Amino acid sequence: MARVSQEHLDARRRQILDGAARCFARDGFHGTSMQDVLKEVGLSAGAVYRYFSGKEDLIAAIAGEAVAGVRQAFERAAQVSPPPTPDVLIGRVVRTLFAEGVDGGRGLDRRAYAGLIVQVWSEALRSDRLAATLIEAYEGLRASWSELVRAYRERGVLAADVPDERVARTLIAAAQGFIVQMAMFGDPGPETMEDGLRGLMAMDVQKIS
Amino acid sequence: MARVSQEHLDARRRQILDGAARCFARDGFHGTSMQDVLKEVGLSAGAVYRYFSGKEDLIAAIAGEAVAGVRQAFERAAQVSPPPTPDVLIGRVVRTLFAEGVDGGRGLDRRAYAGLIVQVWSEALRSDRLAATLIEAYEGLRASWSELVRAYRERGVLAADVPDERVARTLIAAAQGFIVQMAMFGDPGPETMEDGLRGLMAMDVQKIS
Repeated sequence: MARVSQEHLDARRRQILDGAARCFARDGFHGTSMQDVLKEVGLSAGAVYRYFSGKEDLIAAIAGEAVAGVRQAFERAAQVSPPPTPDVLIGRVVRTLFAEGVDGGRGLDRRAYAGLIVQVWSEALRSDRLAATLIEAYEGLRASWSELVRAYRERGVLAADVPDERVARTLIAAAQGFIVQMAMFGDPGPETMEDGLRGLMAMDVQKIS
Repeated sequence: MARVSQEHLDARRRQILDGAARCFARDGFHGTSMQDVLKEVGLSAGAVYRYFSGKEDLIAAIAGEAVAGVRQAFERAAQVSPPPTPDVLIGRVVRTLFAEGVDGGRGLDRRAYAGLIVQVWSEALRSDRLAATLIEAYEGLRASWSELVRAYRERGVLAADVPDERVARTLIAAAQGFIVQMAMFGDPGPETMEDGLRGLMAMDVQKIS
């Protein structure tokens, strides 16, 4: 009997995950059956169940990858030293996140990938396991982006007396909202957020308050 | 036979919607059956089906109300003339949205209400009807908030040469991200966004770029 290489096993696992992601992006976690996944990947039930015990297991794997992808995009953008302005930073996050090939080459378009992320948020509301994964990733993000905001402050860029963490959370919120808009209404383009944040930063609030 | 007043019909309809919203917030659209709703509201199938043809019909009604609630919160905040600074404005949106009683008194806490909104976004990915409702509301918001940004510009508050609509979209994104964070990680408190936006507006980007 021929030995099955680890590479082959990994590739097969990848093939199943990619097919499942396409199904989930198209019909939703709840509108997709294991039969749909088998058909999409063109494999037998026996071949698929060797890797995943069922749909819940597939959802968990796909959701875990989506969460990791989002976190990675944020972390990478924050690693540039000294940090660029927040508009460039957030632009970099969404550009990294929705760059071609970032979804593991599973053939999702940008909007479908954004939709997958929104589905993961929704699913986390009823899955403690997934919620824990999301919370852990978010805590990490909050910490690293708060440091980034502190770097702005130390360079005299951030004058306002507000907690660093709140600025970090607000920047993260802007990126999350971008994902919502992309999933719902189509790709607004990263320059939307870049210009929008640039506009906010250029506001002379003294003239109002 | 006693005449049934319109008031009674409305109250009964409200009672069913509120019970369904509690079920949906707790167990998700897909984790809730019509049996669960009947049990929650304490009515017979006959009584409930008189008002709603089934779960899809209930989801559409609840989702429609959630979308209207979000839109209303944005519209109300924008009606103040002259507009306050964006931090105050966005603070007002989330305060209105998550004020007690804003969910129609159906007894959802703030986080559950935020979770319901995230579920509506997710559901819109597979429901054309719901997607159309969301798109219409968003187009309206984008238009009224773009006018608001133009008002800033006319008063000399917004100096940057960026399209008004992009600033509007970015502010809306920040509020949407706030809803995501609230649903996922608990209530960050409106002052998080207020401080965060204030911090961004007080950044002296000349010192970086």
